[in-house]
Amino acid sequence: MTTTMTSGTESTNKSASPAEWIAADWGTSHLRVWVMGKGAQVLARLSSDKGMGKLTPTEFEPVLLDLLADYLSDDAVLPVVCCGMAGARQGWVEAPYAAVPCPPPSSETGCKVDVRDPRISVSILPGIKQLEPADVMRGEETQIAGVIAQKPDFAGVICLPGTHTKWVAVKDGIVTGFSTIMSGELFALLGTQSVLRHSVGADGWQQDSFEAAVREVCDDPAAFARVLFSVRAQSLVSDLSPEAARSRLSGLLIGLELAASRTYWSSGDVVIVGADALADAYAAALKLNGIEAQKAEAEELTLNGLKAAYSKGIGTDQ
Amino acid sequence: MTTTMTSGTESTNKSASPAEWIAADWGTSHLRVWVMGKGAQVLARLSSDKGMGKLTPTEFEPVLLDLLADYLSDDAVLPVVCCGMAGARQGWVEAPYAAVPCPPPSSETGCKVDVRDPRISVSILPGIKQLEPADVMRGEETQIAGVIAQKPDFAGVICLPGTHTKWVAVKDGIVTGFSTIMSGELFALLGTQSVLRHSVGADGWQQDSFEAAVREVCDDPAAFARVLFSVRAQSLVSDLSPEAARSRLSGLLIGLELAASRTYWSSGDVVIVGADALADAYAAALKLNGIEAQKAEAEELTLNGLKAAYSKGIGTDQ
Repeated sequence: MTTTMTSGTESTNKSASPAEWIAADWGTSHLRVWVMGKGAQVLARLSSDKGMGKLTPTEFEPVLLDLLADYLSDDAVLPVVCCGMAGARQGWVEAPYAAVPCPPPSSETGCKVDVRDPRISVSILPGIKQLEPADVMRGEETQIAGVIAQKPDFAGVICLPGTHTKWVAVKDGIVTGFSTIMSGELFALLGTQSVLRHSVGADGWQQDSFEAAVREVCDDPAAFARVLFSVRAQSLVSDLSPEAARSRLSGLLIGLELAASRTYWSSGDVVIVGADALADAYAAALKLNGIEAQKAEAEELTLNGLKAAYSKGIGTDQ
Repeated sequence: MTTTMTSGTESTNKSASPAEWIAADWGTSHLRVWVMGKGAQVLARLSSDKGMGKLTPTEFEPVLLDLLADYLSDDAVLPVVCCGMAGARQGWVEAPYAAVPCPPPSSETGCKVDVRDPRISVSILPGIKQLEPADVMRGEETQIAGVIAQKPDFAGVICLPGTHTKWVAVKDGIVTGFSTIMSGELFALLGTQSVLRHSVGADGWQQDSFEAAVREVCDDPAAFARVLFSVRAQSLVSDLSPEAARSRLSGLLIGLELAASRTYWSSGDVVIVGADALADAYAAALKLNGIEAQKAEAEELTLNGLKAAYSKGIGTDQ
């Protein structure tokens, strides 16, 4: 387990500034915790590699108590508001999905955990499901809440790039629908385990190759299947470089994704959650389609979403 | 190494009916050999699991000599005509690709192997390449030759389903273009290694689920990316069965493939090479689009293609 502080000036001990509540993002691979003081002040940021994927249900509470040891008190109950995969069926306690259309998780839909230690009370925020087309999210809904907290009148789509990219339509503080697209997972599988692995480099980037591929597929999505093998064939018959092949594969997948998500991004504002190369690639692909997306920092959104949920009564005993 | 005979009545010894030439299909995983007598009679069918993927260049000749031991003579040179991955860069001897538009391999494009044993002469048939869009085939071109040998005036498309399905346009005995679509490999990767593996069964089939998915994507190819994750989500929110999920995944992929190959199958005759469940699935998907495809037996086509190549002078010293 690793414990990190965001900065020396933000961290302190509980006697000087006692923790008022705990914001927690418990994903598949990691647990991230913010120790919150009065006035939404972040006293400390802690993290652990004990993600949901490594734990059985009975192991969650000890992991959390261990991480929070310096902030627990026998005199008060410390509320913990948790989002993410800890609420999955295979997690700590299943927090049943809310169904669209719905606002991001609020006190009505939070799931109280029956903890043994009297010094904490834990609520897990539910994910969101969609029946038709069938879809689910767990964790991203809290980042959506973060966007809405900053922009209550936001109308448009929030794009959360990743292994399974989410496109989430929001209007008047309500999630009206969403779509999960598996481009990230397909990129990893095709680039490292399919016949294309012989041609696709492990790193490197050629923006021209990426953009040409986005254009090729975005306006003609069926072309994706027709030209995917060309990533291999071009390296056999016309010496496509590994860097160009990698960029081309990414462009074909993101081009298909933009064709699939057109109804989401073609009207209203577009916010991309993330500040890495993947977020840049999505922004560039949208720009080719005349869309100027804004970017937002993922971790800040998660914390803001947890704050919004807490301020609505989640995690308290009242 | 396994040696099999097609039937007792077809096999005989060389003194009764000497081998005139050898037809060989040397693929990545297997070597298949037909011992040919006078008048295109099959004297024996032999096979070995020593595919190209298991051999270094110097190992090919001993493997072939071992398999043919009963049919070699010190008094005559036995011509061997070989198709498939033995001619790849990483195979026995590279047989450079012919480029479309071209007829299937003939004596002009065959590649003579410099063998050590004077009792055999070996020619490897080249594959076919296409520069734009970049594509390659090696082995399928001989099955194409088999179709043309049976139907010299064939005009339409030959579909060869598999890990990498080929759609090959043929007119007047000429391969005019082709497209490789990776649906088979994507089905295997998505069904066994992606998040969808939690929902997709290892076997079982529901024709209704397959056909609904074909329809869903064939007329709206971008829907593929939009609904792929639903194979997982439907099992979470609406109890999709593992058999239905497997059939749906196959239908989404073949639906996208048909959208991508529409210019190939939408006019002219369609022949599907194969007689298994996969060939049936392609035939059913085409039927949903108003196309009645014919089926042809793959191994018979390979042998007919090798016969056609031999009859044009391949494999002889003249």
